[in-house]
Amino acid sequence: MTPTTPGRKLRFGTAGLLGPEIEEMVREAPEELAEATETVHPADLAEIAEDLSQEDRGVLINNLPADRAGEVIEHLDPGLLKDTLAALDLERAARVLRAMAPDERADAVGSMEREAAEAVLARLPRADREETRRLLAYPRHSAGGLMTPDFLAFPPEEKVAAALDRVRDAAPDVETIYALYVVNGSGRLAGLLSLRDLLTSPGEAPLAEVMRTDFVSANVQTDQEEVAHLISKYDLLALPVVDAENRLLGIVTADDVMDVLVEEATEDVQKMAGVAPIESGYFQSSFWLMARRRAGWLSLIFLGQLLTTPALEFFESTMRGTMQLVLFLPLILSTGGNSGSQSATLITRGLALGDVQGSDAGRVALREVLTGLLMGSFLALIGLARAVWVTGQMDIALAVGVAVAAVAMAGATIGGLLPLLIRRLGLDPAVVSSPGVASLMDVTGIVVYFSVARLILSV
Amino acid sequence: MTPTTPGRKLRFGTAGLLGPEIEEMVREAPEELAEATETVHPADLAEIAEDLSQEDRGVLINNLPADRAGEVIEHLDPGLLKDTLAALDLERAARVLRAMAPDERADAVGSMEREAAEAVLARLPRADREETRRLLAYPRHSAGGLMTPDFLAFPPEEKVAAALDRVRDAAPDVETIYALYVVNGSGRLAGLLSLRDLLTSPGEAPLAEVMRTDFVSANVQTDQEEVAHLISKYDLLALPVVDAENRLLGIVTADDVMDVLVEEATEDVQKMAGVAPIESGYFQSSFWLMARRRAGWLSLIFLGQLLTTPALEFFESTMRGTMQLVLFLPLILSTGGNSGSQSATLITRGLALGDVQGSDAGRVALREVLTGLLMGSFLALIGLARAVWVTGQMDIALAVGVAVAAVAMAGATIGGLLPLLIRRLGLDPAVVSSPGVASLMDVTGIVVYFSVARLILSV
Repeated sequence: MTPTTPGRKLRFGTAGLLGPEIEEMVREAPEELAEATETVHPADLAEIAEDLSQEDRGVLINNLPADRAGEVIEHLDPGLLKDTLAALDLERAARVLRAMAPDERADAVGSMEREAAEAVLARLPRADREETRRLLAYPRHSAGGLMTPDFLAFPPEEKVAAALDRVRDAAPDVETIYALYVVNGSGRLAGLLSLRDLLTSPGEAPLAEVMRTDFVSANVQTDQEEVAHLISKYDLLALPVVDAENRLLGIVTADDVMDVLVEEATEDVQKMAGVAPIESGYFQSSFWLMARRRAGWLSLIFLGQLLTTPALEFFESTMRGTMQLVLFLPLILSTGGNSGSQSATLITRGLALGDVQGSDAGRVALREVLTGLLMGSFLALIGLARAVWVTGQMDIALAVGVAVAAVAMAGATIGGLLPLLIRRLGLDPAVVSSPGVASLMDVTGIVVYFSVARLILSV
Repeated sequence: MTPTTPGRKLRFGTAGLLGPEIEEMVREAPEELAEATETVHPADLAEIAEDLSQEDRGVLINNLPADRAGEVIEHLDPGLLKDTLAALDLERAARVLRAMAPDERADAVGSMEREAAEAVLARLPRADREETRRLLAYPRHSAGGLMTPDFLAFPPEEKVAAALDRVRDAAPDVETIYALYVVNGSGRLAGLLSLRDLLTSPGEAPLAEVMRTDFVSANVQTDQEEVAHLISKYDLLALPVVDAENRLLGIVTADDVMDVLVEEATEDVQKMAGVAPIESGYFQSSFWLMARRRAGWLSLIFLGQLLTTPALEFFESTMRGTMQLVLFLPLILSTGGNSGSQSATLITRGLALGDVQGSDAGRVALREVLTGLLMGSFLALIGLARAVWVTGQMDIALAVGVAVAAVAMAGATIGGLLPLLIRRLGLDPAVVSSPGVASLMDVTGIVVYFSVARLILSV
């Protein structure tokens, strides 16, 4: 975030109220937009902009002063960046980008089409251009892709009082003045301190004496999920990012990490529902993008699900012989799927939060077998009672009851172990989606149910 | 969090390494624990403590100095608080609680059995006891339940330089010195400023002249999800919490909100998988608690799923007549369920993030009908081809194809609209779990499939 100038008046939470008013102004008097929105918080203005049509959004951004436009774009849904920037002419886009914080600027340029990005980069001052290129070289979801190179660093011999003066001078422009870094001649991170530490240290002490040398840092390549985990675990204001030689390259601040936490949670939720991750909001994503993200997994699961046909064919004679068995087929299959979804979700989330480790397979299996058996036995009683009532035949009812219990147990166990297996293969356990587990359990359920029925009914 | 004393050496990320060493020390030389763990970060020590048995954890906490024990307890999984505190004798528990930050202390006391809580409260100094009782009176998931009353406030006429001196004096003890509040005689919040603002303002100016009067605050009753949303949207360091008369009661800091974001996301994930929310980690929750949380929804869905039996009974003659229809039943039912899970998840998450509003039903319906139809048509072609191959009968294949498309579309539409309906009823849309939608779609799927088949096969 760009630090807000003190004293500037901003209204908060006015997006809903002002939306219609601003939409009208966009169409009828766009030249009045700058003044009319002067006191609206950029986060609210971004929210209003998100609800406008693409064309109207372009008009709004085009009529704001460059620095305001930059602030609004920093708060915009990432899925809208590309088209919004494309609506500006190159000169204007360059001016808006110059006004943005370096990390946000790199994200914005990174979202543009290659040619447009190059054209706009050519119009940036050399230092900004090179900084942006450097930041764009890091993977988007790494510490490098998240960090800002805009931090305050001091030599170890600098005195506390002098450092405090420098903090005051830099305060209006820098990303944060609360996390301060001590860097030696070759750019290596020697220590860090908070502004709190600085304010409570004697003025004549050199920083080397008061800095903390026990701190946690991230390599530029570290995944953003790990960055978020470190900042949240140790309650940090900011995390320093270094290269392999321990040279300080940038910092990730706590507010950037909040967005990461929400984004990662959303991704996990989507994957677990069998949707390939979508970065933008529901209405901000194009119809075609979203259809593709959904159709992929849905088709894959459909293909897997085709196996239920030969499984049923195999038991065709059993079905023909005792047609009433079919009446309970969906009940049994869904029980396995639901029980499996529950445990797959619990274990996947546990892995994401670090509560469950890859090496816990034994403990997970034990817990899931017992939980599945317990829940399954309870459901089996209901199923059995219902089957007696519907068919009046004890042997069919018994087959239903035993199958319900067995399938609930198998679902819990397979659903619990699958994410661990996937993790061990080096893949993301969240790909074990609920629909995926449910489909796997359908095939399992068919085999279990009719095998049990054959045994009990001796057909 | 309690501010860490500058200069104290702490090692980070040593939990995995030290775990076994500390476990051994707990058993063989507990008196050495305090010194041996002196330099371990409390977050790491809490991680180690979480992996110990309940008894060993009690020994570890009992052998740490009271302030260290308090820091470790602040980082502990909330599900373990009760039993860990119960393992301490009352005098010691009171000493540990005194060392904790007020908000964390209230959470800890709130987790204890009523009698134990009263006994330990009686041993706290009067001021701490009253503060704790006041905090405990707010709902746990409200701004009041989250806030700390430990903030820096100044009168409006105080000069910048004097305020800065006070900040320095308070720095070692207070929760944050970066967010500062201006409060008038009757305790009403008049304005706020950051330490950054204070450092860049002229020393002789009264705070009333340099403070921000445009800010966002939360009422004590505000839900924690809304608090998290405000802090993350406006990139705040802290959010002031006021009563109905605008009196400043406390602040919620950004680091507390990170835990809330993770907790709320986990709850939503669990609910969507048909698990009642569990606050603790997978292994930290007792077997019985977790089984109950899972069995509830699973049983409810099982009862709903019983409706598939009469639905199938109704079509029994159709099935008997064309047994091969049954071979594709699981395929068709799961397609509806999977398509429904996808859209239910996307809309539920969209509602949680504010991307989708309760009033968007029309737009959602349009998008889901089209998406469902598009994906369904594609899957229908695969299904049709497969059915021709298996049965060699064009009419059965046609019934399968049409049913797949219809069920995919119905699933997407119903799955998308259901969370909106639930929200409109004032309930939490996350209760529309994937298993719930899948089961609903099973009944729908049976009716659609066999009705289509009857039409096409004229049976």
